[in-house]
Amino acid sequence: MAEPIGFQVRLPDSYDAAIEKVTHALKNEGFGVLTSIDVKETLKEKLDVDFRRYIILGACNPPLAYKALQSQPLIGLLLPCNVTIEEQEGGTLVSIANPDAMLTIDPLSASDAVCTVAAEARARLERVAQALQG
Amino acid sequence: MAEPIGFQVRLPDSYDAAIEKVTHALKNEGFGVLTSIDVKETLKEKLDVDFRRYIILGACNPPLAYKALQSQPLIGLLLPCNVTIEEQEGGTLVSIANPDAMLTIDPLSASDAVCTVAAEARARLERVAQALQG
Repeated sequence: MAEPIGFQVRLPDSYDAAIEKVTHALKNEGFGVLTSIDVKETLKEKLDVDFRRYIILGACNPPLAYKALQSQPLIGLLLPCNVTIEEQEGGTLVSIANPDAMLTIDPLSASDAVCTVAAEARARLERVAQALQG
Repeated sequence: MAEPIGFQVRLPDSYDAAIEKVTHALKNEGFGVLTSIDVKETLKEKLDVDFRRYIILGACNPPLAYKALQSQPLIGLLLPCNVTIEEQEGGTLVSIANPDAMLTIDPLSASDAVCTVAAEARARLERVAQALQG
């Protein structure tokens, strides 16, 4: 079966509250938010088009990133792990990238060390998704 | 044949000069740099370990990103397109993510619109790699 590209959670929270909640849940699993792209703002500024509130957070667990980078420098093309938060009617939709799915891309899957790290990152991010639902 | 995860170019330039050159080449193909992660600095700060100079730039072509996001909101999990630059003996190594490879991940490959956009992004990023070599 194909790996899901991400784990999705619908929250009843407002957009701003969801960003705070997700950031906190990530922190509990050792992921800091290194980058943040406000998609709505960027598209307005660059293209003058209207888009719903949508943010891309770049989450990084430093020990896991370090292990992965040591065994496969190309892994930087897939870092950090993205988490998107978008406004929906009545709440927000959170999507968390699945590191295992990223590894379906050759040649990364060839490295056992990278696969082990991705599996751990995935387990942690699944717990983030569970914590958000709980 | 499996898609290459990225296009790699070795440059004789210093690390700082390479970052400038890559940023300029990306701009010529309509990609702005939205995020920048200094991996060496981050690993030093978070883990107190030494790593070579290595940066992850998040490059975004707004019209392409907009088209992709309209047809498949999950595409945000793969944005922006990463470009890594790392110090090597005698120069730098530039790696540019291949958007087509990212689409080998289900279910994104199911969307014709997303595949068309990825193909255009790929063509542009290949020209970036060519420009850097030229």
